[in-house]
Amino acid sequence: MMITSTANPTIKALRALRQRKAREASGTCLIEGIRLVGEAARSGCIECLVVAPELLRSDFAVELVAQQRATGCAVIEVSATVFQHLAQKDGPQGLAAVVRQAWVRLDQLDLRQHLGWVALMEPADPGNLGTIIRTVEAVGGGGVILIGPSADPYDPAALRAAMGATFAVALVQTTWPAFCVWLDACGLPLVGTSDQAATHFQQIKYPQPLVLLMGSERHGLDASQQAACQQLARIPMLGHSDSLNLAVATGIMLYELLRQHDIARA
Amino acid sequence: MMITSTANPTIKALRALRQRKAREASGTCLIEGIRLVGEAARSGCIECLVVAPELLRSDFAVELVAQQRATGCAVIEVSATVFQHLAQKDGPQGLAAVVRQAWVRLDQLDLRQHLGWVALMEPADPGNLGTIIRTVEAVGGGGVILIGPSADPYDPAALRAAMGATFAVALVQTTWPAFCVWLDACGLPLVGTSDQAATHFQQIKYPQPLVLLMGSERHGLDASQQAACQQLARIPMLGHSDSLNLAVATGIMLYELLRQHDIARA
Repeated sequence: MMITSTANPTIKALRALRQRKAREASGTCLIEGIRLVGEAARSGCIECLVVAPELLRSDFAVELVAQQRATGCAVIEVSATVFQHLAQKDGPQGLAAVVRQAWVRLDQLDLRQHLGWVALMEPADPGNLGTIIRTVEAVGGGGVILIGPSADPYDPAALRAAMGATFAVALVQTTWPAFCVWLDACGLPLVGTSDQAATHFQQIKYPQPLVLLMGSERHGLDASQQAACQQLARIPMLGHSDSLNLAVATGIMLYELLRQHDIARA
Repeated sequence: MMITSTANPTIKALRALRQRKAREASGTCLIEGIRLVGEAARSGCIECLVVAPELLRSDFAVELVAQQRATGCAVIEVSATVFQHLAQKDGPQGLAAVVRQAWVRLDQLDLRQHLGWVALMEPADPGNLGTIIRTVEAVGGGGVILIGPSADPYDPAALRAAMGATFAVALVQTTWPAFCVWLDACGLPLVGTSDQAATHFQQIKYPQPLVLLMGSERHGLDASQQAACQQLARIPMLGHSDSLNLAVATGIMLYELLRQHDIARA
């Protein structure tokens, strides 16, 4: 039966997933759009689909819904009006999904991963976080380790920026002390970045796999965090700026790691 | 005399600068925060300051206001309440400024610039645009050429993301035909990026200065835009993604240009 009222309790619960509190309480999030739902379907983390048949025009999407239904996935049908009430994107495509959050613990990370992981100190901006997740997936990295109070990778802005990569990489939430204990136990090298570092980032020979530690948007890495790093890399800046956008800096570092990885394999 | 009412016509006009229409009509924008105002002061483009003495706690900011006042800059004093009404940031610092937009024409670009320029096809996201401006300034690039209907670099989100770099680089707004005519006349090489390109971006020897052409977030470069490029570079992606965030991709390309520039000089 199609839900046609925005006052319906299910719809209220879905809309509440815009709030972190509701996402954390349920261990889920709401994703929107054909592309994101397709990526989530590939990783098998869909709990139920939300479909507005009136809006669903893409053959790919209709097929995706049929496939998910065939595997026993619940499908909530809603009117166009109700879907627009849930949607945060302009021009909604009529397809959304409730997806299980998939956190892993540090001790569950596969240490044979070839390139490594990105660890972020208290990243504040969900867009930056999502963009970093997208780049980590693009270079074949293992995932993202969030240290301390961080933006939520299941925030709608983070999910949009990650373009589906959220469901393809490992996500860890931890604390600085727990991170240090794990690092010590597993023996992975830690490389950080700092505008004060002596060595140019392209002049370091990086061990792989490694953990790349990036400071918060506002404060970078503090002295004790820098001291925990085996290497500190400096991304040069020629203008008045003393920093780059966090997602840009992380992307530049990751493509340098990938370059060295390719050279090592060649 | 201090303005204490949000209904004051000056305050209404300042707040209207959140809208692109009002910014374009006046050729100005409103910037907020000590850092941004400091960068704008350095480039000499401040039309007037907006100061909330009750909120202004930083010695640096008080000194900045005094300096600007001494050069004859108008200062509008407002109450904390009025400032908070204007402010878009949390924890406003009590300092904002109306700044003249500083567009240049293509024929005004200094062709002796060493690294080059970034040209963006219809960038849609002001945050991406501001982040790219920030990175261009950081690598010592000449500026950003916006082609076709584009996000506004003077949008509050773009200004925030650029962290003051907006006032330190050249900004051009043009059309694709006018861009092609200029390029043809000045003889600068055009390099584009495409996930279909045959050549890995780190395997191209880039001429400098050049114009780096980046496609829109949604569509990349179309066939005719790719055909206009002397070189097409591919940023490799190993995961499911077929694209990177526009600002990340631009940052990766710019740091490869900078690396080659440094090697050429060494």
